[in-house]
Amino acid sequence: MKNRTTPRVVVIGGGFGGLSAARTLAHYPVQVTLLDRTNHHTFQPLLYQVATAGLSPGEIAAPIRWILRGHRNVEVLLGEVVDFDLDRRVVKLSDLEVPYDYLIVAAGASHAYFGHDEWEPFAPGLKTIEDAIEIRRRVLLAFELAERQALSGAEHMPLNFVVVGGGPTGVELAGTLAEIARRVMEKEFHAIDPKRTRIILVEGGPRVLPAYPEDLSRSAEEQLKHLGVEVRTSALVTEVEASAVHIGQTRLPAAVILWAAGVAASPLGKQLSAPLDRAGRVLVEPDLSIPGHPEVFVIGDLATLKDEQGKMLPGVAPVAMQEGRAVAHNIGRDLRHESRKSFYYVDKGSLATIGRASGIAQFGKLHISGFIAWLAWLCVHIFFLIGFRNRLIVLIQWAWSYLTYERGARLITGDTRLPSVDGLIDERPPEGQQVSA
Amino acid sequence: MKNRTTPRVVVIGGGFGGLSAARTLAHYPVQVTLLDRTNHHTFQPLLYQVATAGLSPGEIAAPIRWILRGHRNVEVLLGEVVDFDLDRRVVKLSDLEVPYDYLIVAAGASHAYFGHDEWEPFAPGLKTIEDAIEIRRRVLLAFELAERQALSGAEHMPLNFVVVGGGPTGVELAGTLAEIARRVMEKEFHAIDPKRTRIILVEGGPRVLPAYPEDLSRSAEEQLKHLGVEVRTSALVTEVEASAVHIGQTRLPAAVILWAAGVAASPLGKQLSAPLDRAGRVLVEPDLSIPGHPEVFVIGDLATLKDEQGKMLPGVAPVAMQEGRAVAHNIGRDLRHESRKSFYYVDKGSLATIGRASGIAQFGKLHISGFIAWLAWLCVHIFFLIGFRNRLIVLIQWAWSYLTYERGARLITGDTRLPSVDGLIDERPPEGQQVSA
Repeated sequence: MKNRTTPRVVVIGGGFGGLSAARTLAHYPVQVTLLDRTNHHTFQPLLYQVATAGLSPGEIAAPIRWILRGHRNVEVLLGEVVDFDLDRRVVKLSDLEVPYDYLIVAAGASHAYFGHDEWEPFAPGLKTIEDAIEIRRRVLLAFELAERQALSGAEHMPLNFVVVGGGPTGVELAGTLAEIARRVMEKEFHAIDPKRTRIILVEGGPRVLPAYPEDLSRSAEEQLKHLGVEVRTSALVTEVEASAVHIGQTRLPAAVILWAAGVAASPLGKQLSAPLDRAGRVLVEPDLSIPGHPEVFVIGDLATLKDEQGKMLPGVAPVAMQEGRAVAHNIGRDLRHESRKSFYYVDKGSLATIGRASGIAQFGKLHISGFIAWLAWLCVHIFFLIGFRNRLIVLIQWAWSYLTYERGARLITGDTRLPSVDGLIDERPPEGQQVSA
Repeated sequence: MKNRTTPRVVVIGGGFGGLSAARTLAHYPVQVTLLDRTNHHTFQPLLYQVATAGLSPGEIAAPIRWILRGHRNVEVLLGEVVDFDLDRRVVKLSDLEVPYDYLIVAAGASHAYFGHDEWEPFAPGLKTIEDAIEIRRRVLLAFELAERQALSGAEHMPLNFVVVGGGPTGVELAGTLAEIARRVMEKEFHAIDPKRTRIILVEGGPRVLPAYPEDLSRSAEEQLKHLGVEVRTSALVTEVEASAVHIGQTRLPAAVILWAAGVAASPLGKQLSAPLDRAGRVLVEPDLSIPGHPEVFVIGDLATLKDEQGKMLPGVAPVAMQEGRAVAHNIGRDLRHESRKSFYYVDKGSLATIGRASGIAQFGKLHISGFIAWLAWLCVHIFFLIGFRNRLIVLIQWAWSYLTYERGARLITGDTRLPSVDGLIDERPPEGQQVSA
């Protein structure tokens, strides 16, 4: 935009990786343009709270423009990238081209259905604010429909909530749904029988949270069961229909099916003509650039890199943020004619929450379960949430729902039509009956 | 549903009127069913705050089920009424029938385009949470598009925001948009020229807020002008296009057009076969029942009734709430074999806000303008907001945005695609140029 002699860095994606790259670059003599197809940064670790009506979308998302408002050399542009021209060094949007000297692609990942994309409409995943609003709609409508069926005197559909995938998102969703089913329904719905609600967590591997040590996986499974979740490990989903999941040979009716099983990298990785792994992630060089193009970097969930033990780095926020900073500093070294450094991930520990006051945490050799792990998780997530106002409000919301079991954001927006009900409310008084007054 | 000998009251609509009827009826020996097509009560007086990104939807809406959770004799049913059978005394939904002994119709009103329904897609109105989200999307996208045009080196489209209708909603929207344009844009957008933003409020009558005394209208107009709003009174909108409004013979290009001009009562009024006024409101009897059907009441924005001076009661929350309580008490009188009382509206004053620290208020002969009126408005609205958690959070949001001028809920959700931009960003470096590092 500005001066043509200042190196221009284009960052694609306003997630954890892209933002941390842009913020670090703000201190270098470069002109940064951050492109995103939404206007907001989404704090993905708390998306499950929006999906389960604990928080409002605005409380875990912030306008990218606002986050970067203090940096005069950073521009924000709303738009979707459709292609690259690495030779001419331009990023192509549908209607314009943005030239770069350096390119940082941090376009993230979406859900994968293992070759069964036809399952997506029946089993939505959770990656965006829109996904979370759609899941919330389905969960709340399921209760409404069952109540309506029960009021009409009919058997209501089985209130089975099936979560596919036992990673952090699946565990969070299952644990929180169990809380809602046990606590909210009983108080507010008169006709349905809360005892018949089932939350079923289906995991293909032998244990939940497979990225954690075995003892913590076991603990997580126990905490889930304590919350009332049925955990099915080594269970393969073979088919998904509108209102049923097939697990092996068994067909399980489901009011709501949520997908937390597979991850597919952004299709932008493919358009970089760089080598990819099976999930579509770009195999990056040690400095996070792509082979043959030292001016193009890929970071976050779209990149794949092994650590010193040959273990793949996980697709989590700390990796993306450290990568963003590392890339920015390497660009700085280029400008100072110094040689680049290889990326080295500093693992400060990992945390997963399961539900009300339950969770697991690993800090090196220290393994923690239960309330303390949940408290650690809560502190870390409040701390990293962007914006003081958001932190304050989320803290209040949490304290409130911890004390009262209320969930404040239970809005059904968008399509509020219910699937049709078979039975009629047929207890109407005989025709012509007079009011007894 | 429950005991057949208990009189059954069906309430249609979970707005101010329906809720206050249901809450009052909860103390009588009746079985109440409240039907609504959404799962939440919307605090309509603060909808403009959602439309202008000051508050999140979840902060001004609460699940109807949750509001009524303490009343065992009140059921809530999500569903849309399609028709009535007044002879058989049933309410018809698409797939079931709900019988009643008493019926209270509080279905509210929507916007009217004075016979030009084709204008609706270009100029959305503000009645529901979905409307507010859509308006927020358009307002935020207008700034994003202009920034993108400006960054491409082209002239950006005129940032004209046209609000049609000078009633309370139009005044609130115009005042708040002016604040956003002056305060937010300058800090966060680098390329557009904030001085060129225009907010134009178009009112067909000779003054804004025509329901208020003349001195307060004049004061409101001055406060609007002070905030930077162009007020055009006695100005008739003759045509609305996708990006322009015709005022008389003049065509005014507009980035966003908002409709706050006309009100049309819910089409359910027509299906009651009762006499209607020109806006489709039901002409009710003094006890708010419809002619020939003492067991059917209509309240709130769907009803029309004159006060003792022969003046039409305004379509505001206090009228609806008092009507709801009055109808409930008259049903109670029926049950006790007492005679019904005519409805009498107690006017406790009215308040309108204009923007940051500006507003007008009328309490009988006392007329107030400016900061004090705004403070009164704020207190009343916090007080009547449903749920202590909501009150606390809205208060914090307000204090925050008052002190910092920030608006926290600036999310674009749904379709984030921009209309296409003509110009290209064409300042790209010549092909093959090397990075200067």
